[in-house]
Amino acid sequence: MENFKFEVLHECKQTGARVGRLTTPHGVIETPVFMPVGTMASVKGLSPEELTEMGSQIILANTYHLYLRPGSDLIERAGGLHKFMNWDKPILTDSGGFQIFSLSSMRKITEEGVTFNSFLDGSKHFIGPEESMRIQQQLGSDIVMAFDECTAAGTDYEKSVEAMERTLRWLDRCSKFDFKGKQMLFPIVQGNMFADLRLESLKRTIPYAKCGIAIGGLSVGEPKPVMYEMLDVLQPHYPKDMPRYLMGVGSADCIVEGFMRGIDMMDCVLPTRIARNGTAMTYKGDLTIRNAKYKDDFSPVEEGCDCYCCKNYTRAYVRHLINTDEIFGGRLLSIHNIRFLNRLVNDIKKAIWEDRLKDFRDEFFETYEFRREQDRQAFGKNAE
Amino acid sequence: MENFKFEVLHECKQTGARVGRLTTPHGVIETPVFMPVGTMASVKGLSPEELTEMGSQIILANTYHLYLRPGSDLIERAGGLHKFMNWDKPILTDSGGFQIFSLSSMRKITEEGVTFNSFLDGSKHFIGPEESMRIQQQLGSDIVMAFDECTAAGTDYEKSVEAMERTLRWLDRCSKFDFKGKQMLFPIVQGNMFADLRLESLKRTIPYAKCGIAIGGLSVGEPKPVMYEMLDVLQPHYPKDMPRYLMGVGSADCIVEGFMRGIDMMDCVLPTRIARNGTAMTYKGDLTIRNAKYKDDFSPVEEGCDCYCCKNYTRAYVRHLINTDEIFGGRLLSIHNIRFLNRLVNDIKKAIWEDRLKDFRDEFFETYEFRREQDRQAFGKNAE
Repeated sequence: MENFKFEVLHECKQTGARVGRLTTPHGVIETPVFMPVGTMASVKGLSPEELTEMGSQIILANTYHLYLRPGSDLIERAGGLHKFMNWDKPILTDSGGFQIFSLSSMRKITEEGVTFNSFLDGSKHFIGPEESMRIQQQLGSDIVMAFDECTAAGTDYEKSVEAMERTLRWLDRCSKFDFKGKQMLFPIVQGNMFADLRLESLKRTIPYAKCGIAIGGLSVGEPKPVMYEMLDVLQPHYPKDMPRYLMGVGSADCIVEGFMRGIDMMDCVLPTRIARNGTAMTYKGDLTIRNAKYKDDFSPVEEGCDCYCCKNYTRAYVRHLINTDEIFGGRLLSIHNIRFLNRLVNDIKKAIWEDRLKDFRDEFFETYEFRREQDRQAFGKNAE
Repeated sequence: MENFKFEVLHECKQTGARVGRLTTPHGVIETPVFMPVGTMASVKGLSPEELTEMGSQIILANTYHLYLRPGSDLIERAGGLHKFMNWDKPILTDSGGFQIFSLSSMRKITEEGVTFNSFLDGSKHFIGPEESMRIQQQLGSDIVMAFDECTAAGTDYEKSVEAMERTLRWLDRCSKFDFKGKQMLFPIVQGNMFADLRLESLKRTIPYAKCGIAIGGLSVGEPKPVMYEMLDVLQPHYPKDMPRYLMGVGSADCIVEGFMRGIDMMDCVLPTRIARNGTAMTYKGDLTIRNAKYKDDFSPVEEGCDCYCCKNYTRAYVRHLINTDEIFGGRLLSIHNIRFLNRLVNDIKKAIWEDRLKDFRDEFFETYEFRREQDRQAFGKNAE
């Protein structure tokens, strides 16, 4: 397995969080790492050069969406996803499972896989573990995710067991697919919000994990403290010699809390999605740039930020663009938000090296203001 | 008037078209020049650095839009338009007149100026020549346009005379505004599609033209041959020592025909607007990238083009982005289209130096295919 390798460079004595290096066929990823999402083979509005400039090392693309449009056959003929989208650094693809469950109507789950209707035109499709692996092979991503069944928060114990067991059986089938050493399969731990199921799922998943393991089925509607509890349960039991990927999580607070709990990789559409709606992520919490109070604020979006947006534009200008539906506004805030998360991850990395990530976490939350009431409550913080 | 200067470097012996250099406080513009439009202080989706990279030397911004949002007071407090939008090269602002006439309801024209309702919220506003000059002073553009009355194609002779006379009286008032040598007023020739009015308007406008004169009220619904006829009528009578700006015209065919008739500057929203709808401008005519025939076309948008889009992406990828409403698609095609027009202008410039612009024009139309039936007919060309 010479194409893939993971080394832990340092483990934080205060938290067990790690700094590491994951080698892939398209380059080395320094962990902890935040991965922006390019659902449709494009991180919305941004060029690959911009992503590189803001320090992104790997992006995520969505198998379900690309399977439907433009089709994985076409991407294979284009020379794979890297060439198709002009991104020569690592790519991680999800399995399509999560989107089938969240976006498609009329889905039918059998032992074989899932029959579903396209969210675009209602056409009928079938994807099982083998199909998902084959599609991801056509896409040519560096990291391939196992085809799993993800359950929503609130799913009862019995159904959670059922989904976990099916995920394990599907994982066994995924593991038989031959990626010829060019792509690495990450198996996914499930088990909903039940500590015993999480532990069992982890234990039975580890044998399939060669150079990476993922935690799925979190941030699916549960309160954040419940998610952190699940991560606490798992942390002592992860394999040490491979990266742990917490799927679909990427708000600033979750990034701090997640990496503190031994997670190495995270991804989320949040920074680009809220950017297009006019929200800037900062060390002081989210700013709603649309607000009238920024109308003639000629300071940068975030003081001290080194991103292209903050170096060249003011809150007043970005607000003007967002309020007039000028797409350059979403582009500028997307650049800022992704750079903000990368800066935050760099600061976390530094704190790990200095064995003080727990202290960093406490300092972070002293100045970070939560925008959503439920988040404030979860952290016992007062409203802005 | 040391801030502004125009030199003719060469005049094409075949056509009278010119290569020149227009000096402004924000730099030298090499003419002929195509100017992209940044209505809202942003050339839709593109960064200033991208515009520079694709060879754009000057952009246009819209006074009417910026007066309403974010307000010219605010832009003045931001340090002017250049600083507000991070563009340090020349800017031309229109007078707001054209947009008042085309976008606002309930407008009332008096000798003083125009009372109109905002297209945003219906609020009542008044702009006359003095107000337009003051707003453009607040914006801080290099080139300021006179406040004029533009008539649509089909306007009768009497009404065309009326609008022309009012435009001349308003011009006299505009000319009294003191820009302190920092901004250059371009007066505008009107006269609808009547050759005698065009000539009279030009003759009476020239005394107000210090370092630039504009031809307005064309491309307002008339067939293209009628526009070219008006330009032919005017060409022998322009002042030689200043640039001539044909307003709001920028399709590839019009650029060739316009510059051939002694025009030095043109602007249009066309390249960016059609880009967002998935149309690529090329030497062979417009391509509708959405078309199924480009589905697995792995060649660049235009073979031989040196733009960022053509150097790094395929028609198949751009089509995928456009068809999935990914905004990066519009950005890539905007880059291509503006670069295409700049390449076309460079080729025109070369033909002027070589005294063969008429030959170049004939060669251009041998391979250029018109997309719109009326354009084909105007050029006596068959359908694609």
